[in-house]
Amino acid sequence: MTKERHIFIENVNPVVACGRYPAKRTVGEECLVEATIFRDSADIIRAELCWQGDSDTHKQTIPMTLVNRGLDFWQGNFKVTDIGCFTFTIEAWTDIYATWVRELDRKVNAGRVDLASELAEGLMLIEKIHAGAKGNDRAILDGALATLQPGSDANTALAMVSRHDVEQVAEKLQPREDAVVSDEYRLYVERKRALFGSWYELFPRSQTDAADRSGTFKEAEKRLDYVRDLGFDVIYLPPIHPIGHTARKGKNNSLVAEPGDVGSPWAIGNENGGHDAIEPSLGTLNDFKSYVKTANKMGIEIALDFAINCSPDHPWVKQHPDWFYHRPDGTIKYSENPPKKYEDIYPINFDTSDKEGLWEALKNVLLHWVECGVTIFRVDNPHTKPFVFWEWVIKEIHKKNPDVIFLAEAFSRPPIMKLLAKIGFSQSYSYFTWRNSKDELQEYLTELTQTDMAEYYRPNFFTNTQDILTEYLQHGGPSAFKIRLLLAATLSPTYGIYSGFEFFENVAVAPGKEEYLNSEKYEIKVRDLTQPSMHDLIARVNQIRRENPALQVLRNVQFFESDNDQIIFYGKMTPDRSNILLIAVSLDPFQAQASTVRVPLDKLGIPWGSRYNVRDLLTGEVYNWGEHNYVYLNPMGTPAHILKVERL
Amino acid sequence: MTKERHIFIENVNPVVACGRYPAKRTVGEECLVEATIFRDSADIIRAELCWQGDSDTHKQTIPMTLVNRGLDFWQGNFKVTDIGCFTFTIEAWTDIYATWVRELDRKVNAGRVDLASELAEGLMLIEKIHAGAKGNDRAILDGALATLQPGSDANTALAMVSRHDVEQVAEKLQPREDAVVSDEYRLYVERKRALFGSWYELFPRSQTDAADRSGTFKEAEKRLDYVRDLGFDVIYLPPIHPIGHTARKGKNNSLVAEPGDVGSPWAIGNENGGHDAIEPSLGTLNDFKSYVKTANKMGIEIALDFAINCSPDHPWVKQHPDWFYHRPDGTIKYSENPPKKYEDIYPINFDTSDKEGLWEALKNVLLHWVECGVTIFRVDNPHTKPFVFWEWVIKEIHKKNPDVIFLAEAFSRPPIMKLLAKIGFSQSYSYFTWRNSKDELQEYLTELTQTDMAEYYRPNFFTNTQDILTEYLQHGGPSAFKIRLLLAATLSPTYGIYSGFEFFENVAVAPGKEEYLNSEKYEIKVRDLTQPSMHDLIARVNQIRRENPALQVLRNVQFFESDNDQIIFYGKMTPDRSNILLIAVSLDPFQAQASTVRVPLDKLGIPWGSRYNVRDLLTGEVYNWGEHNYVYLNPMGTPAHILKVERL
Repeated sequence: MTKERHIFIENVNPVVACGRYPAKRTVGEECLVEATIFRDSADIIRAELCWQGDSDTHKQTIPMTLVNRGLDFWQGNFKVTDIGCFTFTIEAWTDIYATWVRELDRKVNAGRVDLASELAEGLMLIEKIHAGAKGNDRAILDGALATLQPGSDANTALAMVSRHDVEQVAEKLQPREDAVVSDEYRLYVERKRALFGSWYELFPRSQTDAADRSGTFKEAEKRLDYVRDLGFDVIYLPPIHPIGHTARKGKNNSLVAEPGDVGSPWAIGNENGGHDAIEPSLGTLNDFKSYVKTANKMGIEIALDFAINCSPDHPWVKQHPDWFYHRPDGTIKYSENPPKKYEDIYPINFDTSDKEGLWEALKNVLLHWVECGVTIFRVDNPHTKPFVFWEWVIKEIHKKNPDVIFLAEAFSRPPIMKLLAKIGFSQSYSYFTWRNSKDELQEYLTELTQTDMAEYYRPNFFTNTQDILTEYLQHGGPSAFKIRLLLAATLSPTYGIYSGFEFFENVAVAPGKEEYLNSEKYEIKVRDLTQPSMHDLIARVNQIRRENPALQVLRNVQFFESDNDQIIFYGKMTPDRSNILLIAVSLDPFQAQASTVRVPLDKLGIPWGSRYNVRDLLTGEVYNWGEHNYVYLNPMGTPAHILKVERL
Repeated sequence: MTKERHIFIENVNPVVACGRYPAKRTVGEECLVEATIFRDSADIIRAELCWQGDSDTHKQTIPMTLVNRGLDFWQGNFKVTDIGCFTFTIEAWTDIYATWVRELDRKVNAGRVDLASELAEGLMLIEKIHAGAKGNDRAILDGALATLQPGSDANTALAMVSRHDVEQVAEKLQPREDAVVSDEYRLYVERKRALFGSWYELFPRSQTDAADRSGTFKEAEKRLDYVRDLGFDVIYLPPIHPIGHTARKGKNNSLVAEPGDVGSPWAIGNENGGHDAIEPSLGTLNDFKSYVKTANKMGIEIALDFAINCSPDHPWVKQHPDWFYHRPDGTIKYSENPPKKYEDIYPINFDTSDKEGLWEALKNVLLHWVECGVTIFRVDNPHTKPFVFWEWVIKEIHKKNPDVIFLAEAFSRPPIMKLLAKIGFSQSYSYFTWRNSKDELQEYLTELTQTDMAEYYRPNFFTNTQDILTEYLQHGGPSAFKIRLLLAATLSPTYGIYSGFEFFENVAVAPGKEEYLNSEKYEIKVRDLTQPSMHDLIARVNQIRRENPALQVLRNVQFFESDNDQIIFYGKMTPDRSNILLIAVSLDPFQAQASTVRVPLDKLGIPWGSRYNVRDLLTGEVYNWGEHNYVYLNPMGTPAHILKVERL
């Protein structure tokens, strides 16, 4: 920044927390840069946007546009094409040439006759520019100089100096004497799957026909077509490692395990190995690799759980006792949240004196699974480990594997969930799971898309998890499941379901609890895949998501008027309006609801007063719509319309 | 900041533009500092606010309070007591002691019996603290240590370690091993008049009984009691310097002055001197000093115009031709805004090669008037001069005269007006003058008080100026004047009127223009001070402003419900609620209006459902009010209530 500035560049966006953290984009997204740029006189200024990827050899630039003169509001746009870090700056300067032409133009048009002085000024200015010009540029400026000689006619001169080619050359070559450059801001670009994907959580040990026999990766591999047919892009696997014996939890989280109880996959480690091993009853590492490879061939990625918990039987307990917390008598502490004790889990001490050893070991666990084909990690409770560890380990992994995606499973307070996103997690679980009413949904989505969260927080709208069966799902019947699926899949580009959701599983362990009865966390669950389900709806919705780019980004959701609080109505469209969806979802799982919904035609680029067709992508039906439209949604059928605007 | 952090301090306020500019306060105001502070485990943390004035020898600290646990939202408060720069930081650390006591407490309360290990941990911790303790602190810790020896009873230990005095000493003396300190932020503190004051603009040459004879400072001095009786704190004088002859403007801005035409005071400089001289027809420098002194004795400050314009006859034109813009033929340029020419004004070239000479000379002009008793400058069109000049000159003046107040007269685009406030202007003219409807007023006041503008932008709500007679005043009759006065004086702690306002002067030079007919800018204006006026209302309103601290700050305005768009209803109160005002103003200058207004009792600390008295400070009448109240305002009387809440 030059010290004595005439020009100021303020309110630059996207910038997260004053630039302390990078804003995020995914490959193929545009980065719309906005700023307030002005100077302390009426001289004309120009601005350009400069950006560079960490693998680019040179900067790229594009002129910015003054889109609101009264607010000195400028915009510029560039498309990110590669994974990695980008930086961008804004440069602004006075356009001396255009300022002079404008003044001459005003005076000529005011009928002033003696403009010899103005022409002489222009002559001096263009001579200066001309001195540095070459070839055709020089020839063009020669023409301008000729009309500015003493005695020239001002009208002739004006016609020449305001010619497009003359202006172009002069503005390009003129000195940027008072140029000002903004601070440099960062952008972190990940692959598209960080933003858009449909997730399915399953326990591999449940991929069996008998509750007393663990499913294996071999069996799970045979059932991959089930997930593919539903249209999912990602399978999330809870931990697949050997499970501890000491204080193993029994069915329904009972303190004493019965013989044959399989234990919680989150109590990791026994004599067969720790975080880099496979639970033997699931098969071998090669079985896992084969599973991953087959899934990948089907277009499905495998997301592995990364839970930094150790059972008392984990190899690290003996190899690295210093990685754990110790009591004064030297014994190792188990997890506690008084009055609760978790004697099957030893928490890790990240502040251990052997921090380097510990952190490297954890990094190597991740790298091990990356080598086995894992491309996504769902990180268990990251907020109970140091933020700085995550910042470090994600950067380390991304050094050689920038395509790895990290999902933060932190159901915590907003500042904590936000910070994890800022320091590097690609995605985060969200509060969507508990936002049921229209007001709640609109408020939460507005925060996610209209505040600075939109620049760094990519929510993954899970409808349920192995821990969370919401009251709405417990008591709303099959329609509730459809409603939550439709909301999740159309509000957020990334969403997920935990298996059993498709079969409307809705029995909680106790009233007021969100845990499942006979939770799959503690036992093998055999599901009859032929029982009544919402397979068709899920498959259809996932197909619609793939076919409609408007559903593949988050920030574009806009809520529109609906005069019934039980019907939420919103639009999503691509920036070029080539894909416009209007979505109405009934939030009432019990009764039919009707509403008049208002389509803001101007926002959609539809001429005022004109009519257009909308096609319901769920049913194929076509309606002729205008500004105000009637919507009727019956929970016994499909409680939503996903309407694609078809221009007439 | 320590590198490996467990604790994060985010979203600190008040911070302007990421700390690039200081936030502003006035002496006696509290500075409420807010931040999001959290760490990556459930350990208890503490935070304190540290601040220091530039003349303080040491930092002061005060503990911050966690006011919203779910949002990790902390607050701390300190009162600024001196003019000048303050800095503040936030420090946060883990309270190891309190964390340990909480864990012990939970386990004891869960009925756990074997807590030897927990007591042993406490013993180690307190021994460490004890090592650095002295005197009574040490004795108190001795008591705690005694209850933690091997074999101690956990209940007894808990009772002792959670005793208030033990906790206090332990928390004070424990090491802050993981302490984190925020960035340092700045606060610029000015005297109270920068925030609160009632202004009156007058032309000293009009303080006469005859339009053909200039008023003098001696006569103006005699009429000071007129302004004092109206209750004003500040008199703003347009430029008082010698007026140029060349191209002098005649009455009503005519291009040719008649003999005897006095010219515009903003065309500064002739053979009698420039910016540091007094127009001889006004009297001598000593007359001016006497005027200032007498005003000061009455409690009135003098604000002088600082207009960096030179007439072609200004001494600087000959002494420093290089301070002006030149045409190629060497002549000096006058001001132009094609097609308009201002041949009576030579603009200054701030980028002159003799910049140091020019900038110093301008500084010296200000210092000269400060020495003559001027304490406030109303700066004319600061946005047409370099921002960096203002930043520099205000800092220079404040070095030795930190009590000088600068008012920016920039009716420009929002970013420019905001920047001038950020870089140092104490006050700014505002868009209030053109905000007439309820929506417009509420929206503008919300921007001024609820966005970051509240931290740096102090608006001066002038109802009119010598250049601005709004359509609302031109056509609304006397009631319109009362309405605008009441709004200005109760919405903003600083407001002003330009003389003539009190006499309802409302004739514009032409339809659609905001300039006055026979503008005082170009002629001497004799006013009959005994003609019908709103003297009494102005005096009463200014008295109410002095007596009610709630009217002396800006940020406390809150808009409440009124079911009539023609009646605006708002509240202002002091933080301790000792002074609560409810203000209803009719915006209709023609017809009586009625409304039901709703008082949000909870915000005012009035118990739900209870009734209370309100006294109209304008009339003395007392009403018994509840939550919903009927208001009737007749423009023929006083179109407002200023109601003071009197508790029952």
